[in-house]
Amino acid sequence: MTGQPARSLGTLYGVGLGPGDPDLMTIKAHRVVTTAPVIAYFRKRGKTGHARTIVSEMLGSKVVIEIALEYPVTTEVAFDDAEYIEPIRNFYAQSATRLSTHLDNGEDIALLCEGDPFFYGSFLHMYDRLRQTYPVIVVPGITGMSGCWTAAASPITYGDDVLTVLPGTLSHDALLKSLRATDAAVIMKVGRNLDKIKKALTAAGRFDEAIYVERGTMQGERVMPLANLESSPAPYFSIILLPGGRGRRIT
Amino acid sequence: MTGQPARSLGTLYGVGLGPGDPDLMTIKAHRVVTTAPVIAYFRKRGKTGHARTIVSEMLGSKVVIEIALEYPVTTEVAFDDAEYIEPIRNFYAQSATRLSTHLDNGEDIALLCEGDPFFYGSFLHMYDRLRQTYPVIVVPGITGMSGCWTAAASPITYGDDVLTVLPGTLSHDALLKSLRATDAAVIMKVGRNLDKIKKALTAAGRFDEAIYVERGTMQGERVMPLANLESSPAPYFSIILLPGGRGRRIT
Repeated sequence: MTGQPARSLGTLYGVGLGPGDPDLMTIKAHRVVTTAPVIAYFRKRGKTGHARTIVSEMLGSKVVIEIALEYPVTTEVAFDDAEYIEPIRNFYAQSATRLSTHLDNGEDIALLCEGDPFFYGSFLHMYDRLRQTYPVIVVPGITGMSGCWTAAASPITYGDDVLTVLPGTLSHDALLKSLRATDAAVIMKVGRNLDKIKKALTAAGRFDEAIYVERGTMQGERVMPLANLESSPAPYFSIILLPGGRGRRIT
Repeated sequence: MTGQPARSLGTLYGVGLGPGDPDLMTIKAHRVVTTAPVIAYFRKRGKTGHARTIVSEMLGSKVVIEIALEYPVTTEVAFDDAEYIEPIRNFYAQSATRLSTHLDNGEDIALLCEGDPFFYGSFLHMYDRLRQTYPVIVVPGITGMSGCWTAAASPITYGDDVLTVLPGTLSHDALLKSLRATDAAVIMKVGRNLDKIKKALTAAGRFDEAIYVERGTMQGERVMPLANLESSPAPYFSIILLPGGRGRRIT
């Protein structure tokens, strides 16, 4: 009853790279990235890509197969726009197919993920498409938000604090409701939502506590009270922190 | 006008160790732990301590000064109990003094922190007491919750999901209100709050989605649907995950 042994499939590694500083990669991530025969990563068309940049020194001149998965559209198009959905769906399907070719061939792939693979991000679209067919191993990473509160020298949660992570794309009312119900908050996807976020923080009475972090742990890092920020919109790699600890008992 | 050069102070490193697997420590954390002349960590009286256990192999027989900061009380006493507050306040003050002695002497200290130093935990009490006087460098780490959702092979947030991190110590009504307002949730400090948490998840209509993780990425790890968990109370190192992604548009 035994036939030919099945050709063994390659493993897809979703490798969390952490917030940007290569020193903040884990020992496990470092090992996977420097030993995998195939490296894959998402990036904007025409850019090197942040994920690829993070590993550039450790790869050096090592020859590996590289798969650059280039987004067909940028954040210029609204996320719920039909013009965005269709090309991006095709893009993810094609990307999964490109990865499959190598996995079918028995080659392991290190798919580089900024931050943590299971905390937002494009890796999830590959994970959902490939995990039924191929072995997948996820290496967690330090989230971008953790890099930001470290860069800001600002503890985010104490004791029994509630922490809420909010995308800046939410409506003013939804932001306000969440901000009123939480001790600590992290607001992501600031960009062109900056003015709306400022209004919601003001309405919640917490504008003066908010900290703005741009490019946390990366070159060009900027940290300041949100009240001191003048430019708008903010760049993509920016985040707003609302530290907890207001009700702590033991000081 | 120049007098004696001031004796240089030691630096306090708050070192995030990540969720438990030593391979999930960062390269930076590994370097600080293996080079610092003084290692400090919190632990329960009479135990080795989880933080110390994580670094045991990498320290090997290297001779370092070790400072074990032993909690005078355990979680047996309620957190807002006066019987708890007073001894723990004294304990933190004495711990800060013990660390100061070495820092005044010019010795760097690696204070080991499970997870991420700025995300809950006892390090914050040392940070608040010592950062005005001594140089402090925080090395972020992978949070315990990130280790848990990786162990569960369960992405926690997609796209524009809201994530809420809740201590299980909250009241039933507070838990329910937060669960109703979020896409994804992480419930920490499960322990003897398990039955209350189950009721809140049921009232929010999300009991069947909840995942129970015990000792994520550590020896003795257990992952299962919360519905399959029979024992109560749960141990201290347990967490409940409510994954997001319900409203994702691109599949």
